[in-house]
Amino acid sequence: MSEERFDTHRESVLGRADVEDTPELVKYYQDLTQFEAGALWTVANKIEPWEPKSDSVPVVWRYRDLRDYVLRSVDLVSPEKAGRRVIYLNNPGRQEVSAAVGWLYSGLQVMKPGEAASAHAHSSSALRFIMEGRGAYTIVDGHKMTLGANDFVLTPNGCWHEHGVEADGLPCIWQDGLDIPLVNALEAGFYAVHPDLSQAITHPVNDAVGIWGGRGLKPTLHDWQKPYSPLLKYEWEPTYEALSAYAKVTDGSPFDGVIMDYINPLTGGPVMSTIGASMQMLRPGEHTKAHRHTGSIMYQCAKGEGYSIINGKRFDWRERDIFCVPSWMFHEHVNGSSSDDACLFSFHDLPVMRALNLYREEALAENGGHQVLL
Amino acid sequence: MSEERFDTHRESVLGRADVEDTPELVKYYQDLTQFEAGALWTVANKIEPWEPKSDSVPVVWRYRDLRDYVLRSVDLVSPEKAGRRVIYLNNPGRQEVSAAVGWLYSGLQVMKPGEAASAHAHSSSALRFIMEGRGAYTIVDGHKMTLGANDFVLTPNGCWHEHGVEADGLPCIWQDGLDIPLVNALEAGFYAVHPDLSQAITHPVNDAVGIWGGRGLKPTLHDWQKPYSPLLKYEWEPTYEALSAYAKVTDGSPFDGVIMDYINPLTGGPVMSTIGASMQMLRPGEHTKAHRHTGSIMYQCAKGEGYSIINGKRFDWRERDIFCVPSWMFHEHVNGSSSDDACLFSFHDLPVMRALNLYREEALAENGGHQVLL
Amino acid sequence: MSEERFDTHRESVLGRADVEDTPELVKYYQDLTQFEAGALWTVANKIEPWEPKSDSVPVVWRYRDLRDYVLRSVDLVSPEKAGRRVIYLNNPGRQEVSAAVGWLYSGLQVMKPGEAASAHAHSSSALRFIMEGRGAYTIVDGHKMTLGANDFVLTPNGCWHEHGVEADGLPCIWQDGLDIPLVNALEAGFYAVHPDLSQAITHPVNDAVGIWGGRGLKPTLHDWQKPYSPLLKYEWEPTYEALSAYAKVTDGSPFDGVIMDYINPLTGGPVMSTIGASMQMLRPGEHTKAHRHTGSIMYQCAKGEGYSIINGKRFDWRERDIFCVPSWMFHEHVNGSSSDDACLFSFHDLPVMRALNLYREEALAENGGHQVLL
Amino acid sequence: MSEERFDTHRESVLGRADVEDTPELVKYYQDLTQFEAGALWTVANKIEPWEPKSDSVPVVWRYRDLRDYVLRSVDLVSPEKAGRRVIYLNNPGRQEVSAAVGWLYSGLQVMKPGEAASAHAHSSSALRFIMEGRGAYTIVDGHKMTLGANDFVLTPNGCWHEHGVEADGLPCIWQDGLDIPLVNALEAGFYAVHPDLSQAITHPVNDAVGIWGGRGLKPTLHDWQKPYSPLLKYEWEPTYEALSAYAKVTDGSPFDGVIMDYINPLTGGPVMSTIGASMQMLRPGEHTKAHRHTGSIMYQCAKGEGYSIINGKRFDWRERDIFCVPSWMFHEHVNGSSSDDACLFSFHDLPVMRALNLYREEALAENGGHQVLL
Repeated sequence: MSEERFDTHRESVLGRADVEDTPELVKYYQDLTQFEAGALWTVANKIEPWEPKSDSVPVVWRYRDLRDYVLRSVDLVSPEKAGRRVIYLNNPGRQEVSAAVGWLYSGLQVMKPGEAASAHAHSSSALRFIMEGRGAYTIVDGHKMTLGANDFVLTPNGCWHEHGVEADGLPCIWQDGLDIPLVNALEAGFYAVHPDLSQAITHPVNDAVGIWGGRGLKPTLHDWQKPYSPLLKYEWEPTYEALSAYAKVTDGSPFDGVIMDYINPLTGGPVMSTIGASMQMLRPGEHTKAHRHTGSIMYQCAKGEGYSIINGKRFDWRERDIFCVPSWMFHEHVNGSSSDDACLFSFHDLPVMRALNLYREEALAENGGHQVLL
Repeated sequence: MSEERFDTHRESVLGRADVEDTPELVKYYQDLTQFEAGALWTVANKIEPWEPKSDSVPVVWRYRDLRDYVLRSVDLVSPEKAGRRVIYLNNPGRQEVSAAVGWLYSGLQVMKPGEAASAHAHSSSALRFIMEGRGAYTIVDGHKMTLGANDFVLTPNGCWHEHGVEADGLPCIWQDGLDIPLVNALEAGFYAVHPDLSQAITHPVNDAVGIWGGRGLKPTLHDWQKPYSPLLKYEWEPTYEALSAYAKVTDGSPFDGVIMDYINPLTGGPVMSTIGASMQMLRPGEHTKAHRHTGSIMYQCAKGEGYSIINGKRFDWRERDIFCVPSWMFHEHVNGSSSDDACLFSFHDLPVMRALNLYREEALAENGGHQVLL
Repeated sequence: MSEERFDTHRESVLGRADVEDTPELVKYYQDLTQFEAGALWTVANKIEPWEPKSDSVPVVWRYRDLRDYVLRSVDLVSPEKAGRRVIYLNNPGRQEVSAAVGWLYSGLQVMKPGEAASAHAHSSSALRFIMEGRGAYTIVDGHKMTLGANDFVLTPNGCWHEHGVEADGLPCIWQDGLDIPLVNALEAGFYAVHPDLSQAITHPVNDAVGIWGGRGLKPTLHDWQKPYSPLLKYEWEPTYEALSAYAKVTDGSPFDGVIMDYINPLTGGPVMSTIGASMQMLRPGEHTKAHRHTGSIMYQCAKGEGYSIINGKRFDWRERDIFCVPSWMFHEHVNGSSSDDACLFSFHDLPVMRALNLYREEALAENGGHQVLL
Repeated sequence: MSEERFDTHRESVLGRADVEDTPELVKYYQDLTQFEAGALWTVANKIEPWEPKSDSVPVVWRYRDLRDYVLRSVDLVSPEKAGRRVIYLNNPGRQEVSAAVGWLYSGLQVMKPGEAASAHAHSSSALRFIMEGRGAYTIVDGHKMTLGANDFVLTPNGCWHEHGVEADGLPCIWQDGLDIPLVNALEAGFYAVHPDLSQAITHPVNDAVGIWGGRGLKPTLHDWQKPYSPLLKYEWEPTYEALSAYAKVTDGSPFDGVIMDYINPLTGGPVMSTIGASMQMLRPGEHTKAHRHTGSIMYQCAKGEGYSIINGKRFDWRERDIFCVPSWMFHEHVNGSSSDDACLFSFHDLPVMRALNLYREEALAENGGHQVLL
């Protein structure tokens, strides 16, 4: 064991560990291992970094690349055998945990008309953002919701849920977003298949929107104590209307343009405990400034085209393209059109950052707030 | 003082005070007064009643009775002299505190085109519900809001506010609702006239609705810590749409039909700390069951016609009529039409009841839940 | 009716009502009364005062004056007839509602050894502060608590409760504090006599203190959702210790010296929704500065002697004396001893002021912050 | 690449993925990798387990094994070079992240009389539990706290902190507990060395205890909005007293005996956002029942001796020994003495589980609730 080195993380900075290996120390370190122990100063600088350095890398997943593969899965595997036909997004830095970025999972799911997946429940919180097709629906704890393009729907932690496409619909593709990697890492994941493989629809179709979708209104009768939004479905039309109305009375965020968070209308808080979601509008020609923050974000272009600069590298996107911004990387967004707005849907783990008091944000100070392309 | 009686509240019930006056006791009682004191058992049954018995009486204020008087005030007094031209609703049981019911004040205010009231602020929380006219507006802390019929607007405790009617408008009448009697009773009322008598408009017109009026969305940028709803204005059209959508997926409340509360969209709570407000739809032919609760309610018929039975007495109402239900009186509502819905706007002090843990509710058990007319 | 005047509240200030009676106006006003209505400008200045002017007056109730009367009630009335033998404190400005100050009731209750009052429950929240005797106890919802001098105990809104003195004890006197006048004014008061006239003791004696009295600790097992403190009893000894420890590390409040609030240990909030309580220590020779705030306060001197200046008038107090400070009156406190500390127990309606966003406070700016004696 | 297998996670259960590799599918999978994507059904069963299976293993760290090594570090490395002289506990299943269990770090730190570590701040939340010595102190944001055996002290996320031992003290050893692995995993860790390498003491020594340590009392003056307990130090004596008092009035938890959580006295919540802590007393002869829950726990025996059974294996412990229970492993505790109580200090990530709605608990149903030793 003479070659084993314990001093590979030294830093010659006051207040940091800077201990050189000696034969006596190495012997001491080796002795400690028999007691499932070690000397902190051999790892302190490694486990207490000066600032976050994400394992994830920025990636753009182009829909024109993936769409055919997604559709091919319909012929390659049956839903019975595959469970769900999903092409998942596999960040090169996070393959071990099958994450798209940080601790977030994402995939593109496809279903044919007349298909229905089996019902299940899990500790992971899930969302879907509809990309194309007609006739998609989701059932959550007996509430059936019909879904169109750019609609956003929740299937929270612990709810029975299943997806399907009506027989008279068209093949549907949507983006799934989940916290599977986080829940696994926290060693808190349970999974259950519904005993009947499908649920009864026990409420009027789209009742969540009828009950909880009033603007500044809530039903006097209904109470809601669960830790996620009762609204469940956020349709594209009122979302785009809200952004447009808001755009008229705001200067917007320097970093994100006209941006709104999907909320639990009873708390003003995020839609689920572990995943938040937002929709932002970049006005014609808008080029935002760069900032960085803790927490990971998955974006999907819902409308228009443009590009983002992430840690100095440009990533072009157009409608349906997906890209990610890892934790603590500078990012800025550009609408590529001087006449039309562009809209980015995003989901992220900022609710986790905030619940654990780990959110931190920083604007880029140099160069007028814009990154220099590498 | 030989005639003075101290035993007028006796009850011969175990656990209640039941002490007969004797000369020795009367002397004792009289002696105590010199020390600003008394014997509890002489007043205990009076100050600890078995259940609430409101000082207010149910009243209906018919718009056809009051409208002319309201309009006449335009000629009778100038806004400069009167401050505001308001006919206030004066419950026969609450004249001493100028309340419409319980601790709630209400009045009908009128303004001519081109008029603007002076800006002021007070500890009382206020709301307006627009009844007729065109071109009304309110400015709250620099936010100007345009107002149409059945719109509901807040001027919360402590905000600078002023009202007016555009020069090209029509005479406007609205109902004011305030907690003036409560704030006075709590000896907590402050009043200030704006140093410039009017405010600058410092935000885009109707910006509160653009910022906070998204369905299930809030601006990422904006924070709000104040103890009232940032939405400020609740327009009639989306309110009626929300009620209609909700009506399709609910059986409604047995006591109130299809009823929704106006809320602070960031908390799900009432619009202000001391006053809540609701809008309810009685479906064609609907006759609700009777219940009673602590807290006082002011109603205005926003649409349709019908009647309510309050403590066994029938009160007919049609569009623009106002009526009140005092605390702990049974009440049930009837839509007089078998083809059209009827809508009741209401405001109330239930947020006070709930904040102080004094809310209590009881359904009428007898007669299938319906009151017998007296 | 020719003498009836409607213009008695005029103020010639811009933004205030200033309308002189004319025969036409008087006729108009009189006509309005038939519709249970009036003209706001005739009462506006009365119901919207510039600042609070309390109906209550400052009073000191001296124990040496009242103690004999309290003890005499033991012979004058039986507990069965009187319910409770209490001399209540009757503010000259609030006799109509039997309040000691504002909307707070207070009285001195006495019980003989071996006596037990019948159990009851009411919507009013109550507290007791023990003044003298031995063997007193209170039972709240089956929890029995033993009580000594200067102990403070809660009997919250809705709880079954009863008081007694052990057979081997001494006659006990304590101060009761309740929100009876407030609950009555809010028309929300219910009263019930326990069906068995007394409760079973269903928990270990003083269990509330054992369960919830840990310093910075709570039982993992126990949950508590009720809107009042589970601790129920706050003993004098740890309270005085806490004040003494705090005194060593604080400069104290300029207005109140070393002051701590009794809290719900699970929320940091007040002990009950409508009544808060505090204990303050005035250090030897301490003379605080004057401030005023909305909300009413009842004080009892728990230790030492001194005086308070309230709205320019001096009120001397010594151990067991009780005094009140009405809303928005300047007050400052003086410890009369240069060697010993003095302690003031107080209870108040500040939780109501805060819950309704009506709390407001102001330091006296003139004269170094001290009032000039009138 | 012909040997690459993608079907190693198949399960032949309805609703689970069960797709066998075919040449066509393998080609399809390989093609997907060029787009940073994969087929979900190849990993679904792996990333969606039926229930948590912790990577950590149960370990007991015996103080008699480690104490000498800890003390030797005093001679082996200087604090200047080492930063801190700590032997960290290195779970065999978590060596990659230097965790003692799950995402919790722990170590034993030693300091000589007269030594003081340099001040720093980090995003990780930290606690210390004092094991032996005399004269230890911690300074947190200018608040100095003196520390004795079994005292528990916080150094929350973001606070400047430093430790030392007075010159006239004895060598001190304490257990550190931090969420370093969690904060690293969440890519949210920042670290800063204090610009002066040490802080000024800006408050009276132990002022946090004087201010916030009252039983059921808080200073009226002080406000506290930070997301951690202001009490900072929890001394052993009042903790043991509280457990003893509580033991008299409770049956205790079937799984944990007489157990109390250290709390933020202003919220009743955990001491920090990411780490909770508890102290439990096992009564003489007590043998608790087994349960399991999500979340990881580190225990230290603070008093007495006994053993715990974790997933069917017995782990003996006595005073100062440390052991861990990984997520979702059954555990039960036994006091080895029939005459004396035993006390276990513990810290854990249950606040994370609860904040993210991932807490789940299950009692062992079989065998009278007791595990069978493997």
